[in-house]
Amino acid sequence: MSKKDINKVNHIDLDSIKDPKFLAGLNYEELDVLASDIRSKILKVTSNLGGHLSSNLGVVELTIALHRVFDLSKDKLIFDVGHQCYTHKILTGRKLNNLRQESGVSGFQKMDESPYDVYEAGHSSTSISAANGFAIARDLNKEKYNVIALIGDGAINSGLALEGLNNIAHSDHKVIIVLNDNGMSISKPVGGLSKFFANISTSRSYNRMKHGYQRVFSKTKFGRWILHVSSKFKNWVKRVLTSGNIFTALGFAYIGPVDGNNIKKIEKALLRAKNTKKSVIIHANTLKGKGYKYAEEDETGYWHGVSPFDLESGEPKNKHEGMVSWSHVYSDITALELQEHKDAVLISPATIKGAGLDCLDKKFANRIIDVGIAEEHAATLASGLSLGGHHPIISVYSTFLQRAYDEVSHDLARMHCNATFLVDRAGLVGADGETHQGIYDEAYLSSIPGTVITMASNIDEAKLLYDESFKNHGPFFIRLPRTLTCKQDGFNDIEHPFGKWMKVMETSKKTVVISCGPLLRALERALKNNRVECTLINALYIKPIDKSMLNEILEAKKIVIYDPYSTRGGLVDSTMAYLLEKKFKGSISAYFVPDEFVKQGTIEQQLARYKIRVEDVIEELKN
Amino acid sequence: MSKKDINKVNHIDLDSIKDPKFLAGLNYEELDVLASDIRSKILKVTSNLGGHLSSNLGVVELTIALHRVFDLSKDKLIFDVGHQCYTHKILTGRKLNNLRQESGVSGFQKMDESPYDVYEAGHSSTSISAANGFAIARDLNKEKYNVIALIGDGAINSGLALEGLNNIAHSDHKVIIVLNDNGMSISKPVGGLSKFFANISTSRSYNRMKHGYQRVFSKTKFGRWILHVSSKFKNWVKRVLTSGNIFTALGFAYIGPVDGNNIKKIEKALLRAKNTKKSVIIHANTLKGKGYKYAEEDETGYWHGVSPFDLESGEPKNKHEGMVSWSHVYSDITALELQEHKDAVLISPATIKGAGLDCLDKKFANRIIDVGIAEEHAATLASGLSLGGHHPIISVYSTFLQRAYDEVSHDLARMHCNATFLVDRAGLVGADGETHQGIYDEAYLSSIPGTVITMASNIDEAKLLYDESFKNHGPFFIRLPRTLTCKQDGFNDIEHPFGKWMKVMETSKKTVVISCGPLLRALERALKNNRVECTLINALYIKPIDKSMLNEILEAKKIVIYDPYSTRGGLVDSTMAYLLEKKFKGSISAYFVPDEFVKQGTIEQQLARYKIRVEDVIEELKN
Repeated sequence: MSKKDINKVNHIDLDSIKDPKFLAGLNYEELDVLASDIRSKILKVTSNLGGHLSSNLGVVELTIALHRVFDLSKDKLIFDVGHQCYTHKILTGRKLNNLRQESGVSGFQKMDESPYDVYEAGHSSTSISAANGFAIARDLNKEKYNVIALIGDGAINSGLALEGLNNIAHSDHKVIIVLNDNGMSISKPVGGLSKFFANISTSRSYNRMKHGYQRVFSKTKFGRWILHVSSKFKNWVKRVLTSGNIFTALGFAYIGPVDGNNIKKIEKALLRAKNTKKSVIIHANTLKGKGYKYAEEDETGYWHGVSPFDLESGEPKNKHEGMVSWSHVYSDITALELQEHKDAVLISPATIKGAGLDCLDKKFANRIIDVGIAEEHAATLASGLSLGGHHPIISVYSTFLQRAYDEVSHDLARMHCNATFLVDRAGLVGADGETHQGIYDEAYLSSIPGTVITMASNIDEAKLLYDESFKNHGPFFIRLPRTLTCKQDGFNDIEHPFGKWMKVMETSKKTVVISCGPLLRALERALKNNRVECTLINALYIKPIDKSMLNEILEAKKIVIYDPYSTRGGLVDSTMAYLLEKKFKGSISAYFVPDEFVKQGTIEQQLARYKIRVEDVIEELKN
Repeated sequence: MSKKDINKVNHIDLDSIKDPKFLAGLNYEELDVLASDIRSKILKVTSNLGGHLSSNLGVVELTIALHRVFDLSKDKLIFDVGHQCYTHKILTGRKLNNLRQESGVSGFQKMDESPYDVYEAGHSSTSISAANGFAIARDLNKEKYNVIALIGDGAINSGLALEGLNNIAHSDHKVIIVLNDNGMSISKPVGGLSKFFANISTSRSYNRMKHGYQRVFSKTKFGRWILHVSSKFKNWVKRVLTSGNIFTALGFAYIGPVDGNNIKKIEKALLRAKNTKKSVIIHANTLKGKGYKYAEEDETGYWHGVSPFDLESGEPKNKHEGMVSWSHVYSDITALELQEHKDAVLISPATIKGAGLDCLDKKFANRIIDVGIAEEHAATLASGLSLGGHHPIISVYSTFLQRAYDEVSHDLARMHCNATFLVDRAGLVGADGETHQGIYDEAYLSSIPGTVITMASNIDEAKLLYDESFKNHGPFFIRLPRTLTCKQDGFNDIEHPFGKWMKVMETSKKTVVISCGPLLRALERALKNNRVECTLINALYIKPIDKSMLNEILEAKKIVIYDPYSTRGGLVDSTMAYLLEKKFKGSISAYFVPDEFVKQGTIEQQLARYKIRVEDVIEELKN
């Protein structure tokens, strides 16, 4: 439809939508206009506030069709990850105006926002297993509703999703899986399955050709005899026609590929799936970033998740002159380490771009491995590389590293495999909310014998720790927060022994503050500005703790532990337990993120919410 | 070969084997005799000492063939799990006489035992990813060796293995995967893939039929014309012939199925695989339990891992009259809970038999779900079931629950999904050693907000906690050890509020002992027998800790925490941190398993190794 035509059709006021029932009354022209308006809205909101862009632009028509074919007040729609649910939020009467803000709607599905959200995620590849659970519950209850999982081609490659697929294939409880195939995942998908997806269209042409042959054969008596010579041949043909497909081989019905950006076509496919008796996969091809040229042309994943940007130019709105993200600091050091250590190999589970490592790709291509969304494989692969004589560097977000807990323990730590983990987005993460907080890794990594957990407070320490990680310490974790720091030219060499804490200032021995990470430096400045007399200790080694330093401070009147990057299960509890063992008699106070799932907001708002800002410590110490 | 023939052939003295080089000099008759002798040895050892039986009997020929085709002093052979490596140990010069004893060889691969062991496991499904790592390391180093992963049909269904397969398919670094298909995993395998394996033989017959048709067509001119009418048809046939196979669809070369109990045939397949350029899967069918009739006929997995048994009758040697395993205690309660709670659904990741739950299968078949080796899926499935209105009970070994850390947090705890986890084999586990210890879950589950972690000290508390887990507390973990307890008829009802600790004895307030689990009762008896005056507290709720009870004991002179079921990251550190916050001035001592991977031995030996027996506590308190 041309722009001119669109103007002739009535527009729906998106802000007036209460629920998706109005969709039933629209014709396809009107639906196309609606899709276009939703795209404009998504662009307007994300360019102002940031958020997930490409994936949301890709599934506008698909989401409209899902709401027309199914009654999602009863049927259960589970978005995998959930970062592609903006159209769903609009159609179910939610305003995106404060998207991802402390006061606004979440960027993911949230059950307390709407009865149309029946499940929540944030991590990928959970939808198929969850759908399996709903379907079993439904059938045990003798209820009637549809269960639909909407999952991308990147997410379906992950072990959890593959376990789910494998189990559903075996199960009598019907689910509908919509595979949203945009050939991208966050950046380019990897692995055999994605190659297989790419082959499916070709396979279709073979099928058409096959039908052509059948037509030719049918024209002659002999040909018909050949075709009908035995029922075995017919069965064989049938088998052959369906066997080229991994999904059908597993036991699914398969519909597709279908154009997921064409409402009419995808509706038809969804209706077929609805009427199918057994579990079914609809393979929908969509265009990621559809309707916004920069996003459509993006091959690196730049437009997957964005900060506020100028719609016209595509340029980011906030330039942060003189600042650099910690991800980029570590990316720069990674380049140096790969240069120096020829045996180093960088592994990333689909976050090369997000971790700022894409710039290394040209120089070190054969030593960079993107395994897709497969954190477990990343860790066990690293153990093989390590025992094979190489030094793996695994760059992974703190929250996603959770997936590899067992592999870090069983395959790396237990065999003392040397490896450097860059634990990105450690600490509070802001707008992504509960599902993405990087505040748990201190605790869960501490529970594994033989791990070394560290966090640098400045760029020079980052280099120090990164260098140290190559020196036969087993799995060595370096936490880095999702914040910015001042740019710096080069690195100042620090000599510092492994495992030792540092005294940063020492104006009094009565009060001792133990902290780590970049906020330690903010605290140092604030202590000096406020003329607070104390000893400030930099616990750059979080595990093991530096017992000799703790022995030195046992006579202090007051000890404050400030770790706003973690729950108490890491530095805080291990230090306190040691102090108690050593009969520390003074008073203690600790600042940490409480044992809960932290809702969205800016990082500053989240720190303020729990009174764990630098100023909260200063206030206590001044009194 | 008949028994009579065997006697004519020279036997190799298994105890004289130094390395596998002698295999090259044997003919197939001699190899068959060797296989038979190795089987006898395995049966003798396991019937005396216990161990993994069926899987080891199944792979004798396959292992011999692997050592003949490859030079495993250079080529890397990675056993998945490793519980099937007894033949490998014999052929590489190790004695099984003290198998799994504190002084003997491990039941798994161990690098410090032999240069022929290049990797270690214990958990399943790691071999493919590890092989990928070795292969990449080899090619980066420009070395030449083969990398072989030997994996069972149960293990290949797990998410980690599927991620590995998917990544290798995409990788240029050749590995050889030997799929040891005995159609059993621990008990019967589940899922679409296993159905697919079962279909492969059928598929082969289709392929043969296909060749038959080609022969028929070739006989007439018209037929030949049809066959050659276009190159497209030829390609299509080729595609069809290979496309019925998930592995080839992913991009692997595929050899099989081949009889894995026939040395000559499996050698031929291995040689082909060795000479193949790209990554290849050999599909070997083996007979689990081969050569021992009880094990061959076993359909439940009874003969997978065994305690000492009588070779003739198959009966267990140690009967433990009047005793019952904790697994069976909880199995009995599970029956009651399934009876009472019609919404309860039991989920097991391939450990129905090991957890003693197989007896429930008949009565509650439609509410018991075996998901195969898929702990991640089990947890996320549970979240769907819970939100769909059911109460999932997940029975899982402590050490395998690690695989589902992320899903327990992100999919269950975060959404406050009610679920009961039976954390089986919690604490020290004895002979399985480093890879199977259940000592970490207190710590890693404590790091997740909203979890409830508990441990009963007797059967009545087990019932109490199990009942409590149905009362809207979110994910509720009940730890049970791998030990025995006295049988008891029925249950004595206990009234006890959620989250509260119990005072078990109180003869003095000066000394307070905090403990949990069945060893608390042993400690209670020992305290009384030794007339130690103290307060003994039962911390049956490990998380959250009972702060009101701790407030009551702040005036004690001495507090002892006795948690021999865990590392310090659970009850010990959280209690100590709280005591320090509350300015506890007395002395403290704590008994826990240190932060390390605990080697094999009996549980008693392991407790003694770390001085965390009941008598160690008594000794301290008496002084």
